Amino acid sequence: MALLYPYEQLFSFSKNIFLKIGCTEANAASAAKVLLSADLRGVDSHGIARLSGYTRLWQVNRVKANPIISIVHETPSTATVDGDKGLGLIVAPAAMQIAINKAKNVGTGWVSVKNSNHFGIAGIHAMMALEHDMIGIAMTNASPLVVPTFSVERLLGTNPIAVAIPAGIEAPFVADFATTTAANGKLEMLLRKNMETPSGWVQTKNGASSTDAAEVKNGGALLPLGGDKDHGSHKGYMLGSIVDIFSGILSGANYGPWVPPFPAYLSMPENMPGEGIGHFFGAMRIDAFRPAIDFKTHMDRWIQRFRSAKTVAGQQKVIIPGEPETAIEIERLNEGIPLIESVIKDLQELGEKFGLSF
Amino acid sequence: MALLYPYEQLFSFSKNIFLKIGCTEANAASAAKVLLSADLRGVDSHGIARLSGYTRLWQVNRVKANPIISIVHETPSTATVDGDKGLGLIVAPAAMQIAINKAKNVGTGWVSVKNSNHFGIAGIHAMMALEHDMIGIAMTNASPLVVPTFSVERLLGTNPIAVAIPAGIEAPFVADFATTTAANGKLEMLLRKNMETPSGWVQTKNGASSTDAAEVKNGGALLPLGGDKDHGSHKGYMLGSIVDIFSGILSGANYGPWVPPFPAYLSMPENMPGEGIGHFFGAMRIDAFRPAIDFKTHMDRWIQRFRSAKTVAGQQKVIIPGEPETAIEIERLNEGIPLIESVIKDLQELGEKFGLSF
Repeated sequence: MALLYPYEQLFSFSKNIFLKIGCTEANAASAAKVLLSADLRGVDSHGIARLSGYTRLWQVNRVKANPIISIVHETPSTATVDGDKGLGLIVAPAAMQIAINKAKNVGTGWVSVKNSNHFGIAGIHAMMALEHDMIGIAMTNASPLVVPTFSVERLLGTNPIAVAIPAGIEAPFVADFATTTAANGKLEMLLRKNMETPSGWVQTKNGASSTDAAEVKNGGALLPLGGDKDHGSHKGYMLGSIVDIFSGILSGANYGPWVPPFPAYLSMPENMPGEGIGHFFGAMRIDAFRPAIDFKTHMDRWIQRFRSAKTVAGQQKVIIPGEPETAIEIERLNEGIPLIESVIKDLQELGEKFGLSF
Repeated sequence: MALLYPYEQLFSFSKNIFLKIGCTEANAASAAKVLLSADLRGVDSHGIARLSGYTRLWQVNRVKANPIISIVHETPSTATVDGDKGLGLIVAPAAMQIAINKAKNVGTGWVSVKNSNHFGIAGIHAMMALEHDMIGIAMTNASPLVVPTFSVERLLGTNPIAVAIPAGIEAPFVADFATTTAANGKLEMLLRKNMETPSGWVQTKNGASSTDAAEVKNGGALLPLGGDKDHGSHKGYMLGSIVDIFSGILSGANYGPWVPPFPAYLSMPENMPGEGIGHFFGAMRIDAFRPAIDFKTHMDRWIQRFRSAKTVAGQQKVIIPGEPETAIEIERLNEGIPLIESVIKDLQELGEKFGLSF
């Protein structure tokens, strides 16, 4: 049973928590905005439910409240950014802004980030490009929960990719997806409801196929998009690997099995080859390719053609990437954000710890 | 039953055919090299088996033998290229070279191409970046064979993505994959052997799931990577859409259901919104992010860690993207390229038509 909370209340609580751990006013507001964007867009696993997790990382000195984010290497169209152990929620928008500034100057901007932490949902960072008539791209590596095809070792994170593309009268195209068959958040939801997963989501610790939502907790793994080789899991594995390499190896962050875990109580991997976790951002000015107005007219035509495509019997319509999230955002801004009991309890305890009421 | 042919013989036959349709020496050599790279790397559906198809496109005036490839719009890091109806086999390397040149100047280069045709395998274009210590990216849209999730209308091509990443002592990482569960070439192979497909590859014209390899020929469709919604097909649909938009809409080429078909006997779509088919290329200088030597050392460590990962019982090893193709290339350069009877017959007829013996 979920209760509805106004966005403003959750935003202000989150911001106050970030202030309590020492963030400046601007950093606290930025972190709260990014965090809550997940709740607004319906990605409940990446929103305020993780707030206490972020504070625990700060408690064990794995994140700094006010990082000194710096460019350590650059060319006119690229930068490598050191996140100085900052919250990813703060580092990511700063790095994406660098990509946007580079794009203003030379058409595109590409930023690889090291020494960062979990950055919330990828989509919100990619979407920063939209108001500048740019295409935005965001990706990140993450702690290993995913096996490469044929393996029983968890060597990759769910490594999401987000691409935001402006349109004209239509809402923008916003794709944001884990490179696994299903994101870990979906698994946690099924586990909570005591339900089985479809085939192709997880495997046991020995690599047998399974539909047990608790499998990842029991030493099993999430599967790359595709599920198994016959269904193209080598492609999901390749996508996750590309995200890992762009985010981790280009920047000098950790990668593969060495990406640090989100839960603060887990120990760090041994022999880590880099610093923190890595992200990768891109911004491409539309008018670096053709006039933005022409592009947007054709994007509208694309969207309208796809939306009106004939459906399989029983299906209402073809979904344009980003449409469901926009609809949820409008609904939740109006009616409130639903929080389940365990999250409410966690936030109450968090409030008590920092002398704030929830 | 396949016969083995030396690479040199197939290269020289292909080059001579391209000369016969009027290509310059340089264009004929470039086209033959790109075409044969598919046979060398084991992507038999995209190699010399398509040679007669390319000549038929030339016969109906859909491709020019010697296009005047031009930059119609540019910034320091981007270009939009007009392929002038050239063979994609010739346009693509020229466009990728522009991306590489831009990367030399400002760190990265990004080129969207309109008015082109089928460009062979994506991987070979992405790999052009490797010798410059750059990451190479290549993608293309293609004629519609793929349904968006929930639809019965074929609105997307198999829209492949290739990413080539240099390593140190290890062979480069080369991913090259259609954004469908399985490429159309694999379907054709099963059809030829009268075998069924696994689930999740195709659907009937009414959108029912099917394992009939003839489904696409009968009005059905290929499915996006994932197969169905439960298994993440919306992610494959998003990936195919991103490729379509980057290749088609950024450049001013056709997109979605309006991408022209490869077979010359098929009529062109009505109300086409752009020119020809579209590609998208990227080149990123490694040392635009960090010293190439550091990057390569870590790529080697990444590759070695993944290659030595513990496998599921019965599996030999985890495959590094590009490794199988490199192995096939070595084998085929040594032992010859296998051609099946129907392809041999097609090439013999093609030779007769142009006064060349095969």
